Amino acid sequence: MSAINPRFDLLGIGNAIVDVLAPVEDSFISHHDMQKGGMALIDTETADRLYAAMPPGTESSGGSAGNTCAVAAMLGARVAYIGRVADDQLGQVFRHDIQAVGVHFPTKPLVGGAPTARCLIMVTPDGQRTMNTYLGACVTLGPDEIDADVVAASAVTYMEGYLFDPPAAQRAFLHAAELAHAAGRRVALSLSDAFCVHRHRAAFRALVRDHVDILFANETEITALYETNSWEEAAALAGSEVEIAVLTRGAEGSTIIAGAERVAVAPVATQVVDTTGAGDAYAAGFLAGFARQLPLAECGTLASRAAALVISQYGGRPPAAQLQAMARG
Amino acid sequence: MSAINPRFDLLGIGNAIVDVLAPVEDSFISHHDMQKGGMALIDTETADRLYAAMPPGTESSGGSAGNTCAVAAMLGARVAYIGRVADDQLGQVFRHDIQAVGVHFPTKPLVGGAPTARCLIMVTPDGQRTMNTYLGACVTLGPDEIDADVVAASAVTYMEGYLFDPPAAQRAFLHAAELAHAAGRRVALSLSDAFCVHRHRAAFRALVRDHVDILFANETEITALYETNSWEEAAALAGSEVEIAVLTRGAEGSTIIAGAERVAVAPVATQVVDTTGAGDAYAAGFLAGFARQLPLAECGTLASRAAALVISQYGGRPPAAQLQAMARG
Repeated sequence: MSAINPRFDLLGIGNAIVDVLAPVEDSFISHHDMQKGGMALIDTETADRLYAAMPPGTESSGGSAGNTCAVAAMLGARVAYIGRVADDQLGQVFRHDIQAVGVHFPTKPLVGGAPTARCLIMVTPDGQRTMNTYLGACVTLGPDEIDADVVAASAVTYMEGYLFDPPAAQRAFLHAAELAHAAGRRVALSLSDAFCVHRHRAAFRALVRDHVDILFANETEITALYETNSWEEAAALAGSEVEIAVLTRGAEGSTIIAGAERVAVAPVATQVVDTTGAGDAYAAGFLAGFARQLPLAECGTLASRAAALVISQYGGRPPAAQLQAMARG
Repeated sequence: MSAINPRFDLLGIGNAIVDVLAPVEDSFISHHDMQKGGMALIDTETADRLYAAMPPGTESSGGSAGNTCAVAAMLGARVAYIGRVADDQLGQVFRHDIQAVGVHFPTKPLVGGAPTARCLIMVTPDGQRTMNTYLGACVTLGPDEIDADVVAASAVTYMEGYLFDPPAAQRAFLHAAELAHAAGRRVALSLSDAFCVHRHRAAFRALVRDHVDILFANETEITALYETNSWEEAAALAGSEVEIAVLTRGAEGSTIIAGAERVAVAPVATQVVDTTGAGDAYAAGFLAGFARQLPLAECGTLASRAAALVISQYGGRPPAAQLQAMARG
């Protein structure tokens, strides 16, 4: 690892998205042929049609890596973010919200192209969220947006798997990974979503093997990656390929594998209101702990507590005061 | 009153605003010299400066009469709304949200002018909300936007006092009141805010005396209107000037005065999370009950229950399912 002290604990790279959240009944999900709990990519026309059918929503900044960066910053980490919004009102909202929690956000907005991405999120009465993403300006994020100085100045460059959906972002991802390693830094990846893993399995397999130091995945994602029904088998494979595999298992807690070390982390019980951002907050807690050089078990505990806080309220980014209290406690 | 059955139970006319809500500490309010609990008008420059200083927010459709219309529609009333947004993303959000609950919204957006209005709302730990409004496109709402057919087709035309801040809207207000009365319909007014009453007292006094059939006001508003410290004195004056005076008194409940009839309505106890939209929801409940020709006491009870629901959650418009259950129950 690099001899120069990093300026940032964490650099997140992801699709910069504004969430539109609305409560719906289960019948809305089935009527619109959605995969409950998943993320689907939609075009402009579908986005317009679906939005017209949706109940009133609330808008808030989202994006998987964006949420992770915001939560990690509120937990005290020094954070930067790279992602592409448009030069429009929703882009201003995204920029405001991530900068307001102290995240460095150097990416220039897209001018004269597609609008800022939005994710139409339906929250069913069981607290599950079903997402429909219109990528908009995100499809223009490419290697040119990867600020080499920021990558070199970040202890960990963290990327969301969703970044593999827009093709230019795949190249940006690999470019960032190479820059990070050339500077002696770590590369982290979240697999994001089982459907996303199915879409990009071969690329993800190569990526994990060749470029990833810290891997985040839940049970369906890690078994999808290694095409097995056995979580144990998938976990062993992940542990053999990356420095640290951080594997969540929902209500069963999580397991962290680092070489021969294996740490079981207990789940934190809470009332589920909305699962939006649960995995993002988990990664944020882990990486904020990792930045403070906490033992892996404590990184896992902070991760579980951050995730529990996020799912106990509506939306993917809880108020700063609650996270600050958690970081102190 | 008119012999022709109205198409709408309620037409709301107001400043069409998107709310930006964020939790802040009390020190934020004092540091930025705000009047806690009040509404201040701000220009573009102040809006930009204050937004830059604000924590991350959530965006949702607001506006006093807009909230009243949305809540009344979710309670089952047939509702129309007139207000001016711009042809921009926040304008689309406003339009979507009010149409999604079934409100008829005929007003054309402003093209090539100021952006859609926004209200920066700081919510302190005690649940109080302090508002800073940038009026944007709202200042272009004038008599031309008042659709005479919609006014004539509405049993009650309801206007927010805030409408007196943009000068053209005052003229729109009087024009709408004249049209409503010419069609044999009722005119309702909410005084909105004590500071607003101070700004426009003379105009409000004349308006109440000459044009208003149903008046909504809280304790500070009604005493400000009649320049007295005695609520009893103010209530008696209001009762002598309008057909129905609906007077809220916070934790003490509310009083409805209709000629010689005086109805006391008990408050509904709840945990206060955020007072945004409390008065708007109260008016919505009352008017939704009034549309169903319920006795005044029942209109007041529905009003109190709607207000309690709104203050027990974050934001000015609760989910439809909760209001629909209330309307049935």
